[in-house]
Amino acid sequence: MIAVLKPDATKEQIENLTSWLKSRGLKVHISEGEFHTIIGLIGDTSKVDSDLLASLEMVESVKRISEPFKSSNRKFHPDDSIIEAGGLKIGGSNFHIIAGPCSVESADQILSIAESVHASGATILRGGAFKPRTSPYDFQGLHADGIELLVEVKKKTGIPIISEIMNESHLPLFEHVDIIQVGARNMQNFELLKALGLSNKPIMLKRGLANTLQELLMSAEYIMAGGNHNVILCERGIRTFETYTRNTLDLSAVPMLKELTHLPIVVDPSHACGIARLVKPMAMAATAAGVHALMIEVHNDPPNALCDGGQSLTPEQFTELADQVKKIREVISP
Amino acid sequence: MIAVLKPDATKEQIENLTSWLKSRGLKVHISEGEFHTIIGLIGDTSKVDSDLLASLEMVESVKRISEPFKSSNRKFHPDDSIIEAGGLKIGGSNFHIIAGPCSVESADQILSIAESVHASGATILRGGAFKPRTSPYDFQGLHADGIELLVEVKKKTGIPIISEIMNESHLPLFEHVDIIQVGARNMQNFELLKALGLSNKPIMLKRGLANTLQELLMSAEYIMAGGNHNVILCERGIRTFETYTRNTLDLSAVPMLKELTHLPIVVDPSHACGIARLVKPMAMAATAAGVHALMIEVHNDPPNALCDGGQSLTPEQFTELADQVKKIREVISP
Amino acid sequence: MIAVLKPDATKEQIENLTSWLKSRGLKVHISEGEFHTIIGLIGDTSKVDSDLLASLEMVESVKRISEPFKSSNRKFHPDDSIIEAGGLKIGGSNFHIIAGPCSVESADQILSIAESVHASGATILRGGAFKPRTSPYDFQGLHADGIELLVEVKKKTGIPIISEIMNESHLPLFEHVDIIQVGARNMQNFELLKALGLSNKPIMLKRGLANTLQELLMSAEYIMAGGNHNVILCERGIRTFETYTRNTLDLSAVPMLKELTHLPIVVDPSHACGIARLVKPMAMAATAAGVHALMIEVHNDPPNALCDGGQSLTPEQFTELADQVKKIREVISP
Amino acid sequence: MIAVLKPDATKEQIENLTSWLKSRGLKVHISEGEFHTIIGLIGDTSKVDSDLLASLEMVESVKRISEPFKSSNRKFHPDDSIIEAGGLKIGGSNFHIIAGPCSVESADQILSIAESVHASGATILRGGAFKPRTSPYDFQGLHADGIELLVEVKKKTGIPIISEIMNESHLPLFEHVDIIQVGARNMQNFELLKALGLSNKPIMLKRGLANTLQELLMSAEYIMAGGNHNVILCERGIRTFETYTRNTLDLSAVPMLKELTHLPIVVDPSHACGIARLVKPMAMAATAAGVHALMIEVHNDPPNALCDGGQSLTPEQFTELADQVKKIREVISP
Repeated sequence: MIAVLKPDATKEQIENLTSWLKSRGLKVHISEGEFHTIIGLIGDTSKVDSDLLASLEMVESVKRISEPFKSSNRKFHPDDSIIEAGGLKIGGSNFHIIAGPCSVESADQILSIAESVHASGATILRGGAFKPRTSPYDFQGLHADGIELLVEVKKKTGIPIISEIMNESHLPLFEHVDIIQVGARNMQNFELLKALGLSNKPIMLKRGLANTLQELLMSAEYIMAGGNHNVILCERGIRTFETYTRNTLDLSAVPMLKELTHLPIVVDPSHACGIARLVKPMAMAATAAGVHALMIEVHNDPPNALCDGGQSLTPEQFTELADQVKKIREVISP
Repeated sequence: MIAVLKPDATKEQIENLTSWLKSRGLKVHISEGEFHTIIGLIGDTSKVDSDLLASLEMVESVKRISEPFKSSNRKFHPDDSIIEAGGLKIGGSNFHIIAGPCSVESADQILSIAESVHASGATILRGGAFKPRTSPYDFQGLHADGIELLVEVKKKTGIPIISEIMNESHLPLFEHVDIIQVGARNMQNFELLKALGLSNKPIMLKRGLANTLQELLMSAEYIMAGGNHNVILCERGIRTFETYTRNTLDLSAVPMLKELTHLPIVVDPSHACGIARLVKPMAMAATAAGVHALMIEVHNDPPNALCDGGQSLTPEQFTELADQVKKIREVISP
Repeated sequence: MIAVLKPDATKEQIENLTSWLKSRGLKVHISEGEFHTIIGLIGDTSKVDSDLLASLEMVESVKRISEPFKSSNRKFHPDDSIIEAGGLKIGGSNFHIIAGPCSVESADQILSIAESVHASGATILRGGAFKPRTSPYDFQGLHADGIELLVEVKKKTGIPIISEIMNESHLPLFEHVDIIQVGARNMQNFELLKALGLSNKPIMLKRGLANTLQELLMSAEYIMAGGNHNVILCERGIRTFETYTRNTLDLSAVPMLKELTHLPIVVDPSHACGIARLVKPMAMAATAAGVHALMIEVHNDPPNALCDGGQSLTPEQFTELADQVKKIREVISP
Repeated sequence: MIAVLKPDATKEQIENLTSWLKSRGLKVHISEGEFHTIIGLIGDTSKVDSDLLASLEMVESVKRISEPFKSSNRKFHPDDSIIEAGGLKIGGSNFHIIAGPCSVESADQILSIAESVHASGATILRGGAFKPRTSPYDFQGLHADGIELLVEVKKKTGIPIISEIMNESHLPLFEHVDIIQVGARNMQNFELLKALGLSNKPIMLKRGLANTLQELLMSAEYIMAGGNHNVILCERGIRTFETYTRNTLDLSAVPMLKELTHLPIVVDPSHACGIARLVKPMAMAATAAGVHALMIEVHNDPPNALCDGGQSLTPEQFTELADQVKKIREVISP
């Protein structure tokens, strides 16, 4: 950490500051420039509140040098993490497609979609039972019944399942769910993250709508700090000024995250774009960018889907997408 | 709600669509333009999923005409809501200053600040016991002990108190807290909002970092839909590209929200700016814009505050602010 | 165009408004809903100022139905435009790589890079002579000399050239430049766009840092309205809150623009990311998303480049990129 | 400037880098931390390209310590600049209201508005003759005729005038205009800024829609580097995700800019909000925040204004605003 002092900082002020910093166990390097004196702090600066330091009268600005995320940092864990979930390995050179409907609606619906996407190459089934909706008057999911329907399909077909959690009190319902999803709006619901950190379930953490990659990694840190290192990150589009697409899929997050962290990375082009026609090209692009897995919304009857029908592919469209994605994978990882 | 059809929509498609819409209890008006046919839906369109409609092949775009928020809408409740909390009336022509430290740190600290800000004109005491921090390694608050210290100060001084909740399971701890704050990161934690909707406590809901006013009102709707109409809205700065200030205080939200809703509006310039020196001018500006209450961070020893010291005023600076704000109020509401 | 009236609009007001609208040559459809009366305007609404309409006391909101861009609109020109430049065809099923240094620095530098990227598959040479820099103290390019060096290389190698213009008074210098680039910061420099609209040069228009696709198309419209239909659009990253990458490359712009317009689309991953290591994966992703051309920064000595060295590839890295991109093209367009 | 090296930087690499930096006339301080070596550069770092440095393999990140703006920096010019224009003094403890129509439409219109706003306390008349419009099909202003009408009104009434320039070739037309405005879309039209830097006219530079305060100051630097120090800055709203208001007025820019620079600061609430009803509260708020001048759109017949009618006040509404603003000024500066 580095503190840049104001030009008018007095010798006495500087001495007081350095002795205060040393009392917190830090080594202090002072370097005097033409206009500014710079104080470099060496040691475990994670205990120094940079806002506090910046608030001192003599301090002009404070800059962190080390990344504040530790457990997810590739510097301290150079090899890719491989997360095991439902008998599958996620991360490294493995590639997966998660597919399924936005919401679980009925036993028939979820079984039919599961069988269809499984046949086309999907390896994990998605299905929402708890749905975060902007309006309290919109359909909120089948809750416990939805989870039960998913688990039944898993038993019948053997395909592992992922579903979203919105409240730590629901954790017992997710016993047979292979991967628990934390949605974008809950990325900084720190109480939920802490609770999930105490479980040993694989967690797929979605990036918030206006959050940076560093904030995403800090939220992963909340889970990992509790002891649960089975974290998968998911880019699902960020909010920008563009209105033709629902959100803007940030694909540069894929190679950037692969540099910063050892955790596996998923891209969800369906939620990012909000338009079914854009899902195939963006799924292909994400694959070309080197992602570890895709998450695709598929519905057997999109116009009658209870939510997010507009971004769902039909099973036929999904088959075509899966074929093209497979060919891109052959280029990436021959 | 209005659906604009694609130029190549066939007569048959249009007929199918209109009969489907009528089957949902809506009246349908068709208006044929030069390039587009437009379908107007009349009736309770809150049950029509606009994303679904937009996903139909023949539909080019869908536009909502009515605001999706109902209980907070000034159209259906023209008079200002007055929320009663701790014996005070908030909203309408009343004006309040909420002041206190970011975090409750000790009995002495919170009592000393409470007495000081009370004497200078603050009518409500703030103090954080549960602190949402980006990093799991930062100070997270004194939790139940912090709430207890606040309640003791309330008993001694008679000043009503506000504190932030992060988890509905903590609700019993807030029994003697007069206003419960929902922080910006939890603005769309719908499970928390639903739980608070079942209580009868006044709730101060902070706008999320990248959320629109409509989303803020939809989150208020989650609380109000549960029966709790004691909702206060708080603008606390939104995320923009500017980096000199921590966030950008959106003061036009004040007159805009006053037009859209009957709920009281608070502005928190301390969190918005993140710099103590900017708090006084922005508090004065918010007052001039017509806000119902201000929320100001005050600490008796800002450089040693456990969190957010950089944005805290000293009690002396707060006194000066309160004086100037009072003079602005005399202009606004003579 | 649709105007939604306020619930309290009187009959007289509505009659006055409709007769005023009719006097402007528009047909008016009135549709009365439960809470709102809606007025639909049919005819050439491009002459109605929607802001003005929205400002009337009785009007609650105004919504445009038709896209405001005409010449670039695929609805009125369903086939892909093919732009001819330097003997090449750009757009449709053609694919190109534009490569070269950020700035032209010397005759040797630009010739050496040109020969190298040409050999690896680049079909167009880029090189900046006029450089828009945030600081007036940064290197601003070689100006006329830079253009001259580019033209000499074109004569020697036969490779067509593209370079950026910043001022319409420089147009004569660009006589032998095959494609004129308008930079992101000048996307809404309407005077420059109008001047270029009067030439017949192919223009590559870069999307502004915080501009929407519709605004990009409206700026294309400025050029096309002058009679020059040789417009190529370029996505080069937009400003978001992410700081690890310089900008955020919006790849969903590729399939979205292909739907909205018939103009060719280029992606520039070098400027978008600002980090050489991310250029290859993002170039592959853009290709997979279906772009018509890529623009890649290549420098024979990146650490000594006079500007933007950090995002430049070496010629060897470019060769590798071009090989992988070619393989992705074979998947896309077999 | 500070360069943070990667953990695996070798001794040899570090020696090479330091000798290269020293060869550029800089002093180099090396400080070795637990994980990182940090290199501090002392001297005139404005000649070091930080992007280039960041691109070196051994470098992890580079941080600037000094602000890149010089001429506008309050550190080197502690006293407020007072700009003289049309016989008025702008900046320091002076306060002005600029008022007038968005566009000059006719001799009668501009004279009538000028007389009315002058009587109510406006000291400068605004009126657009060159209008930057998103669409080439919208009204673009009366051009030279508009400037002429403004100059005539100035002769008749004695009120100084301000108008927007879009092209340096129009500079001769502005001979009798007292302040030349550079619009938000041209804030980074560096060629225009350079041309204005060679004149001695007072320039009012508007902040771009998605630009930071530092970028605004760097654009001021372009003008000042040419020798023209008569620069006035204008905050006119920035683009955010909020849609109820056209833009978001960033009032914290007022106290922040006053800290960073000695140049006078204007706020334009009319363009920021786009809604006439919000202009008065936001003008009062800007005044309370300490701004040096306001810019307000006034039209004698808003519903028939040729552009931006929706945000214009009537002369009566302006009188009321001016009265309230005067009272706020008495609080601020008694």
